[in-house]
Amino acid sequence: MFITFEGPEGSGKTTVSNIIVNRLEKLGYKVIKTREPGGTPIAEAIRNVILDPKNTNLDPRAEALLYAASRRQHLVEKVWPAVSEGKIVICDRFLDSSLAYQGGARNLGVDNILSVNMFATEGTFPDLTLLFDIAPEDGLKRIAANANREVNRLDLEKIDFHKKVRETFLELAEKYNERFVIVDANRPLEDVVENTWLIIKKKLGI
Amino acid sequence: MFITFEGPEGSGKTTVSNIIVNRLEKLGYKVIKTREPGGTPIAEAIRNVILDPKNTNLDPRAEALLYAASRRQHLVEKVWPAVSEGKIVICDRFLDSSLAYQGGARNLGVDNILSVNMFATEGTFPDLTLLFDIAPEDGLKRIAANANREVNRLDLEKIDFHKKVRETFLELAEKYNERFVIVDANRPLEDVVENTWLIIKKKLGI
Repeated sequence: MFITFEGPEGSGKTTVSNIIVNRLEKLGYKVIKTREPGGTPIAEAIRNVILDPKNTNLDPRAEALLYAASRRQHLVEKVWPAVSEGKIVICDRFLDSSLAYQGGARNLGVDNILSVNMFATEGTFPDLTLLFDIAPEDGLKRIAANANREVNRLDLEKIDFHKKVRETFLELAEKYNERFVIVDANRPLEDVVENTWLIIKKKLGI
Repeated sequence: MFITFEGPEGSGKTTVSNIIVNRLEKLGYKVIKTREPGGTPIAEAIRNVILDPKNTNLDPRAEALLYAASRRQHLVEKVWPAVSEGKIVICDRFLDSSLAYQGGARNLGVDNILSVNMFATEGTFPDLTLLFDIAPEDGLKRIAANANREVNRLDLEKIDFHKKVRETFLELAEKYNERFVIVDANRPLEDVVENTWLIIKKKLGI
């Protein structure tokens, strides 16, 4: 079983996934919690090229290809082996983040990014994708609250970018409604956890 | 003007291209001789991931995506700027090598590799592609002669791989016959040079 958690920063997805993993393990499930590049050395090396501050002139299409290469290696080395051993893999961000951020918000085209990623994944989609949906302004306030700082001009300039990310995520949830479930991430944490837990239990048939 | 030299190792393409570049410069042309990653730091960093001996378990599809990413960065930083300044860019291996080696010989599918590379190149094809064609056995003998060693069992085991490379190159030359010219690379070097020079002069209209 391959489950992905998607949504913007500030949506609480990482906090929630930690709690969910804990509950699943208590029920005796073998769970792998991961995120790309997931500690696989080659995928880490690729990610280092993307994140190296020296590489400020990394072209957006080259970046998209590097993400796809890192995704491929993470699938081959970590996700596919675990799934084939019957484990539950919970992955923090996957394909849909590339589609929303690079395809949608960076204007490279969702279909273009999908095509490159289909080559990388050979058609592997998650069995279940939880979209932690929150308005960019609200997610931003949360991040600012955590960082103990005021929302600044730069944050606000990015709002359009994040609105486009959200819009694309919601379009994907509609397009792939057989695997997507939207979680209202604007509610209190405990409500979000319980909602997520119900969705996961339903998927596992427990 | 963007010209690519393609063919196997041992076909003489690098030697010939050096001579051609020299002749073009003597005629006053501004020429950039390059090959991926072409000294562009990001493309070099990507190439290092591919070539790092530690990365023996690099998946072939991840490798293909990395080559495409390196190609993209090399195009953006080096090839496109030079071409738009009116220079002649002569590139030792390009897209068609990926199609022949990874698409054909490694069985990833020529159309799959083409699709990934179309995302990388946004449809940029060379204006002229010279295919230095030689039977794998003959190319191998040349390499062995240069290295002053006998052809060994490992070399011979690779023959099928190189036959598949050649076959795919020849299919590409037919498919893209508007930009491909095949050079018989099994003839003496001076003949290959003069043949190549005629083709280049015709393309330049001189």
